Amino acid sequence: MKTAARFDHYRVLPGAKLDLSKIDQEGDGKLDKDDAKALFEEERASIIASQEKLYAEGKQSLLIVLQAMDAGGKDGTIEDVFRGVNPQGCRVSSFKVPTAEELAHDFLWRVHAQAPGKGQITIFNRSHYEDVLVVRVKNIVPESVWRPRYALINDFERLLATSGTRVLKFFLHISKKEQKKRFESRLADENDRWKWSPGDLVERALWDRYEEAYEGALGECSTEAAPWYVIPADKKWLRNAMVAHLVAAMLRDMDPRFPPPLPDLGRVKIPD
Amino acid sequence: MKTAARFDHYRVLPGAKLDLSKIDQEGDGKLDKDDAKALFEEERASIIASQEKLYAEGKQSLLIVLQAMDAGGKDGTIEDVFRGVNPQGCRVSSFKVPTAEELAHDFLWRVHAQAPGKGQITIFNRSHYEDVLVVRVKNIVPESVWRPRYALINDFERLLATSGTRVLKFFLHISKKEQKKRFESRLADENDRWKWSPGDLVERALWDRYEEAYEGALGECSTEAAPWYVIPADKKWLRNAMVAHLVAAMLRDMDPRFPPPLPDLGRVKIPD
Repeated sequence: MKTAARFDHYRVLPGAKLDLSKIDQEGDGKLDKDDAKALFEEERASIIASQEKLYAEGKQSLLIVLQAMDAGGKDGTIEDVFRGVNPQGCRVSSFKVPTAEELAHDFLWRVHAQAPGKGQITIFNRSHYEDVLVVRVKNIVPESVWRPRYALINDFERLLATSGTRVLKFFLHISKKEQKKRFESRLADENDRWKWSPGDLVERALWDRYEEAYEGALGECSTEAAPWYVIPADKKWLRNAMVAHLVAAMLRDMDPRFPPPLPDLGRVKIPD
Repeated sequence: MKTAARFDHYRVLPGAKLDLSKIDQEGDGKLDKDDAKALFEEERASIIASQEKLYAEGKQSLLIVLQAMDAGGKDGTIEDVFRGVNPQGCRVSSFKVPTAEELAHDFLWRVHAQAPGKGQITIFNRSHYEDVLVVRVKNIVPESVWRPRYALINDFERLLATSGTRVLKFFLHISKKEQKKRFESRLADENDRWKWSPGDLVERALWDRYEEAYEGALGECSTEAAPWYVIPADKKWLRNAMVAHLVAAMLRDMDPRFPPPLPDLGRVKIPD
């Protein structure tokens, strides 16, 4: 991951004991708004160009996992960073409450089915991490079930990585104060109100327990093959710039190339 | 389909006996390049705005089917018309040569699985129509198998339509001369050469038989619920303007709306 050196201090080190309350949701102040916007535009163009080659090459895949508290900016990040990418090579998979059939299988079954194919970028809007987050916070399964999942998740992501899929995971880190602001703004905006549900208040009341669950998941499941980044997400322009840069840097590192021409294409004549 | 009146003369009438060789691939000349480009930009913006509401509303779906001869512009149409749409609510499904498992099922099985969910736009890059096109041209199954598929396809599309999915089908109609030009340009362009394969010449040699198969499929399977349009596609700017307009007009006709607020949202207080 040498190419993404710029924000490498936001990468979670394998086995780290995180304290999210000590990580500022506004960032380290090193990137001001103008520079962030310029970086964002540059990297967005870079992503679009790389994706075209990735698709043409048809050999490598990129999986991007997005997790956040409610109103943390998952939808906005997808829209801002990936709008403009050719939809043919980019797919979003959202994981909601599992269906009866999904629950009848292991927790990675439905997730595996959505893994990107060769040449594709897939974005997970929520993911298999819900099975060590909401499931833990709400005591849906006991610790004896969710804790071993850390290792199973690492195994699964290693399988993907070994098979040509790069994995980037972003925790969009917002403050409780910012969440309140966003909820209030959703409630005030006629076109945004549908995003809000009374259940959001139930989740908000569990803020500290979610934070604890995130600290566990991010620390235990940030690996060389599939790193977690904690993205300061109170400022959308900073979040967008960082995510775009890290994705663009990953794509540059993957270095996809247009396939070489077949040996004798120079001599092909197209008949009338 | 009253809203798309502008290009309604390109809609295939149910049961029509088509003669594609009589339909000009350059269009009827009523729309010049500048006007087409202006229309395209306007309708692209309209699609983006409608799609946001479609997704928010979460009640209706739109399925777009793209078929064409090789180099007819399926990939280009997707990229040009749908780049800019939020990838979260828009998905492309490409149908290639069926796998062994797919062949072990009825021909609509793999297609049905890719139908759009509520709030979604799905674009089929090739589709179930291949099962009455390539399959017919190459004698992969006998006529006693492919001909009854017209009715099965109409039944299937009626099922979708009855369940809240609008269906728009575009045949991108290019001339044999234009295909030759595009093949030659692909061979000449280092970044485009990967799109070309020697097998394309085999298909080109079967041009007339494909045309006949398209005439059958378009005539038999253009219904009120799921109309086929023949899009003159030699000029990319005309093709883009027409497809964008027809999609935008359909979305306007669907008239998606942001969901109404829950009754007492005005009184909600977000605790700190």
